[in-house]
Amino acid sequence: MSEKISVGIIGATGMVGQQYIRLLQHHPWFSISYLAASPQSAGKKYSDAVAGRWHAEGDIPSSVEDMVVHDAQDVQGAASRCRMVFSAVEMKKEEIARLEESYATSGIAVVSNNSAHRWTADVPMIIPEINAHHAECIRAQRKNRGWQKGLIAVKSNCSIQSYMTPLFALLKAGYLVDRMFVTTLQALSGAGYPGPSAFDMVDNVIPFIGGEEEKSEVEPLKILGKVSENGIVKADAPRISAHCNRVPVLHGHSACVSLGFSAKKPELKEIESIWRSFKAEPQELDLPSAPRQPIIVRSEANRPQPRLDRDADKAMAVTVGRLRPCNLLDVRFVGLHHNTIRGAAGGCVLTAELIKAKGYLN
Amino acid sequence: MSEKISVGIIGATGMVGQQYIRLLQHHPWFSISYLAASPQSAGKKYSDAVAGRWHAEGDIPSSVEDMVVHDAQDVQGAASRCRMVFSAVEMKKEEIARLEESYATSGIAVVSNNSAHRWTADVPMIIPEINAHHAECIRAQRKNRGWQKGLIAVKSNCSIQSYMTPLFALLKAGYLVDRMFVTTLQALSGAGYPGPSAFDMVDNVIPFIGGEEEKSEVEPLKILGKVSENGIVKADAPRISAHCNRVPVLHGHSACVSLGFSAKKPELKEIESIWRSFKAEPQELDLPSAPRQPIIVRSEANRPQPRLDRDADKAMAVTVGRLRPCNLLDVRFVGLHHNTIRGAAGGCVLTAELIKAKGYLN
Amino acid sequence: MSEKISVGIIGATGMVGQQYIRLLQHHPWFSISYLAASPQSAGKKYSDAVAGRWHAEGDIPSSVEDMVVHDAQDVQGAASRCRMVFSAVEMKKEEIARLEESYATSGIAVVSNNSAHRWTADVPMIIPEINAHHAECIRAQRKNRGWQKGLIAVKSNCSIQSYMTPLFALLKAGYLVDRMFVTTLQALSGAGYPGPSAFDMVDNVIPFIGGEEEKSEVEPLKILGKVSENGIVKADAPRISAHCNRVPVLHGHSACVSLGFSAKKPELKEIESIWRSFKAEPQELDLPSAPRQPIIVRSEANRPQPRLDRDADKAMAVTVGRLRPCNLLDVRFVGLHHNTIRGAAGGCVLTAELIKAKGYLN
Amino acid sequence: MSEKISVGIIGATGMVGQQYIRLLQHHPWFSISYLAASPQSAGKKYSDAVAGRWHAEGDIPSSVEDMVVHDAQDVQGAASRCRMVFSAVEMKKEEIARLEESYATSGIAVVSNNSAHRWTADVPMIIPEINAHHAECIRAQRKNRGWQKGLIAVKSNCSIQSYMTPLFALLKAGYLVDRMFVTTLQALSGAGYPGPSAFDMVDNVIPFIGGEEEKSEVEPLKILGKVSENGIVKADAPRISAHCNRVPVLHGHSACVSLGFSAKKPELKEIESIWRSFKAEPQELDLPSAPRQPIIVRSEANRPQPRLDRDADKAMAVTVGRLRPCNLLDVRFVGLHHNTIRGAAGGCVLTAELIKAKGYLN
Repeated sequence: MSEKISVGIIGATGMVGQQYIRLLQHHPWFSISYLAASPQSAGKKYSDAVAGRWHAEGDIPSSVEDMVVHDAQDVQGAASRCRMVFSAVEMKKEEIARLEESYATSGIAVVSNNSAHRWTADVPMIIPEINAHHAECIRAQRKNRGWQKGLIAVKSNCSIQSYMTPLFALLKAGYLVDRMFVTTLQALSGAGYPGPSAFDMVDNVIPFIGGEEEKSEVEPLKILGKVSENGIVKADAPRISAHCNRVPVLHGHSACVSLGFSAKKPELKEIESIWRSFKAEPQELDLPSAPRQPIIVRSEANRPQPRLDRDADKAMAVTVGRLRPCNLLDVRFVGLHHNTIRGAAGGCVLTAELIKAKGYLN
Repeated sequence: MSEKISVGIIGATGMVGQQYIRLLQHHPWFSISYLAASPQSAGKKYSDAVAGRWHAEGDIPSSVEDMVVHDAQDVQGAASRCRMVFSAVEMKKEEIARLEESYATSGIAVVSNNSAHRWTADVPMIIPEINAHHAECIRAQRKNRGWQKGLIAVKSNCSIQSYMTPLFALLKAGYLVDRMFVTTLQALSGAGYPGPSAFDMVDNVIPFIGGEEEKSEVEPLKILGKVSENGIVKADAPRISAHCNRVPVLHGHSACVSLGFSAKKPELKEIESIWRSFKAEPQELDLPSAPRQPIIVRSEANRPQPRLDRDADKAMAVTVGRLRPCNLLDVRFVGLHHNTIRGAAGGCVLTAELIKAKGYLN
Repeated sequence: MSEKISVGIIGATGMVGQQYIRLLQHHPWFSISYLAASPQSAGKKYSDAVAGRWHAEGDIPSSVEDMVVHDAQDVQGAASRCRMVFSAVEMKKEEIARLEESYATSGIAVVSNNSAHRWTADVPMIIPEINAHHAECIRAQRKNRGWQKGLIAVKSNCSIQSYMTPLFALLKAGYLVDRMFVTTLQALSGAGYPGPSAFDMVDNVIPFIGGEEEKSEVEPLKILGKVSENGIVKADAPRISAHCNRVPVLHGHSACVSLGFSAKKPELKEIESIWRSFKAEPQELDLPSAPRQPIIVRSEANRPQPRLDRDADKAMAVTVGRLRPCNLLDVRFVGLHHNTIRGAAGGCVLTAELIKAKGYLN
Repeated sequence: MSEKISVGIIGATGMVGQQYIRLLQHHPWFSISYLAASPQSAGKKYSDAVAGRWHAEGDIPSSVEDMVVHDAQDVQGAASRCRMVFSAVEMKKEEIARLEESYATSGIAVVSNNSAHRWTADVPMIIPEINAHHAECIRAQRKNRGWQKGLIAVKSNCSIQSYMTPLFALLKAGYLVDRMFVTTLQALSGAGYPGPSAFDMVDNVIPFIGGEEEKSEVEPLKILGKVSENGIVKADAPRISAHCNRVPVLHGHSACVSLGFSAKKPELKEIESIWRSFKAEPQELDLPSAPRQPIIVRSEANRPQPRLDRDADKAMAVTVGRLRPCNLLDVRFVGLHHNTIRGAAGGCVLTAELIKAKGYLN
């Protein structure tokens, strides 16, 4: 226990903050030593601060129930108690950007769920199975900003994770994709709590999620980008068209995807085989939160389905199915992942494990 | 009353059959004089035959409650009582094809909801706002088969109706579309009753509907085809890729659509203007079931939504929204229509009105 | 048109306010001449004020789209433009009580959906089929308060309306009920908008609605009370135990009810016959919004159901079913009504019609 | 492993049969050695027999995937391979009764989920926390029927389990309950698969479940009965009135309960304390499937809720909340349990453990 790394959760009362708590409560490397949230929650016991809006599975872990919640603005307080923070605050983008920087300036490693720093050139946006090597730009980041121990790493928008790993597995195998059509059916929890009104979602779907399509079309390019001296240089391909819908599902974003290859085109069997055998750095490093198989291929005609497949491999795997030819591009499939675990808190914990394994917390 | 045309409903106890009854109960031209269904229902009062599975809005119309249900196989019985039948039977495809032909041979005009004759060359598959002129091939049909008064006309799969009229309006205005991506979010009622289990649809979506994608990719080509001497010759474009999902919505199929133009490309404003002003033969003929405006354009960012928009203009209009540029093809939008009315019973009633107005029931 | 009574809607942007607009748009006696809401909405066109949160069926009626919304606090403004207002404001109870009184002091007849004045002795709480005669206490009210033309009349909590009319029909027929068990399954719209989060209601029910059980146990006693010189004296019976649940239904409160009779006990057939033949003052006066049959008895084993029965008779009837002996009290049944129409806006419009018919608007 | 008792599952392909498999796959005492189902499934691999309708959490356990399914009628086949069977067949009641008897005659211990033998006098209907001592009547059963090693024990209807243990805890503490009002909100899985149509359950509740109210009113009396020489003599109290509703929830039956005491009445605090400290034979014997605390008391105003509380303590605990005075009887509360685990497969496994611990499998 004494060797565990002390971590804090900033924005600990929200939906993603709660998932961090659940995922970290028995973590082999990290130990929760600090919780922070908005001024309204500051000073309260965690169980009081979160009363009536605890939404993660099971009850509030007894280890954090009585912890006092701090003000997220109290950076020095955090610095004195933890080596790393997971950020899931909900504020204006510019404020979050500044706050995360001040944490890093104070020597804290920040792993953020938020979009504020996704397009900061020297901040890596990491999906550990895809671009673990982007962690390298932490060196540029520290140099640029004069940080010794602090750092910022972020995750991408959750919705793209239903297809980014399957896409990357093909790229890695040498099959270049230059065009991609995506239509998502996204879960309620992606909107935070309370999120959409039940009155709007019974007997209905909503064909719009503010800002989601724009993010879905550009974030993949940074993730597939190259590390340069000054940060990440985004990739040129694929060109993506994304349409995002909200559906009455609790957790689990589905994506209907069509891919067009620019050069040689794999057979469907080849694709399936690439996916089934795909492993990456989190699996090689045997990171605690890494799914054994990052991509699970279902052969049933009607899978993946959110309720049946979102929890696969600790809710950290991406499940794909319905691989078939596309009448317009080359191939089509459906991908699915658990948006608040793989796509949010769990993905950030995996990134934190990667950063630790690569020595950036020394 | 005495001048109304006597019509029958074959398959009167099913979900679509019930909609026919509801839509025809006060129809100005047609009067329900005959109901038929499977042998199990034959001989029963309609209200008994349908007990526990009446799903249309409101109660069973009192005018049909006590009508005796006949056996759908009793073609002569139908012939003696009605000039036209609406077919919504559920049997094997080949059996339906034969049954509908024998009705037509007996001198009955058959308007069918079923897919059995969709690809019979001399049977028109009609969406009245698009290809009313396909009714002409009834002449070839009668000649080929030696029918004097009988005829068969069918409707297309419901799912394509969310975008076919908006697509056609652009074609008609001279903007040729050669590629089209469609992802549908389809309602439960499209699967008939009982359809999917509630256990499968709570907190879930199902990314597969058997046979639906295939139909969605080819039926538009017949609808956009040309009338030749021997029937309809299907069109070459657009090439369509369709992905179909089932969502927990009662009625109303949504479609996320991207269009690619082959030659000149309209501005978004031009498209909107084309849609808003689109009228076709049903409007010009002032058919009783024709929507005043076949295409309704919503300007809100999050419309159309199934529960809010499916009932627009007697549930006979197609509602579109979210018109915007596509990152891969040219433009994108969302279309929506009421699948059991516009896409099924209501569409067939409109086709029947068209056939009558064109003189084929004389 | 010139003879119609000018009415205003105070709280016009909320869920109940919208229903008022929908119900009054073609009303034969009343004409909407005034809309008011909170200061944030004041000064805006109605369609702008309600943008993104119009929830009533169909679109915003064009007759009110461009009306300017006033500040609900501007009592004089209202007084100059309307003879009666329908109040559906959402503020603190005491503030509403004061505001409604100041409207009445200004000479306006106030019919309120709100609970603020339900227990004011000289304010009648009216369900027109039950206690139309309570309108008499408007005289005491005017005398007590020195009002010439103003008045206040209110409706009860919506949840009790699923069983109050069936209960009253039995009382009126001479069968005294002294004990009553009620468990409700209440719709989302009863909580206003946005109301419960979709995340809380998918795959779930909530066995609690704040304040609802208390109201359900005492309001019936005022409704069944007697008019005295100083106002209503509440009845002694029946004693009610109410348990209230929230379920994922859009509209339509269901109630599972057991009744115990204190003296003679009717046969089930007698009860059914009493319900089927029940008529009251709104039917005798032929009020425009009165349901033809206030109580509809369904004989199917599994009715009433919210989606199938809430809209019966313009959504103004109460539907009952499953009448059977109770193993503990005497009889049991299930009652259902449309909570935002019969139980809210429609009930108030009916009360307003009653008040007008009885001459209180002269 | 070699010491584990070989068990079979009869009706292994249904919803409850699947739960047996899931619960028994790592059981410390029992090992699945035999699967049987209807003739249509017989001869198939389990994974093929259940293809497209596996509904339990997670995938089909690999240990049973390839097991061949036998015909449930092949009693000798079962007798040669297992000492005990869990029965969850779906056939006519009389056939099930006969089939279960023939298994027992063949020397097999039968623990049944089915209602066929619930009212057979010498067959105990066991909720292990309440009437573990009813197992004694297995002796009478064996004597009556000349069975040496065979036996039949059954479980009650699932819906009553949301309140029977809380009720029993009070009885055991000396507080006699003679009247009880119950309204249930029952989950979809209680109806088996496919169960209700999604079309019937979206935006709806159904106030009726065939046969459920009758069972709910009488089964508690057998469970609370006394063991006599010839079997169980049912208790006289409490008298119960039950109303059962179906709601769109996947798992978890809720019950709104009012209790009337016949003699001394406990304070609410006393009741809560009795519930919190309640333990029974399964806990004392430390049976593998026993919940640590059979009754969990929630203090939040709006709990228990199906989705949040059904899984408490391996889905084997009953959760109660909202304890408060009743306006008609004495006290009220809400109880909830997981109907397919605690109320079905899990309850039967616990009963089997009890029977084994008491030596009836020697």
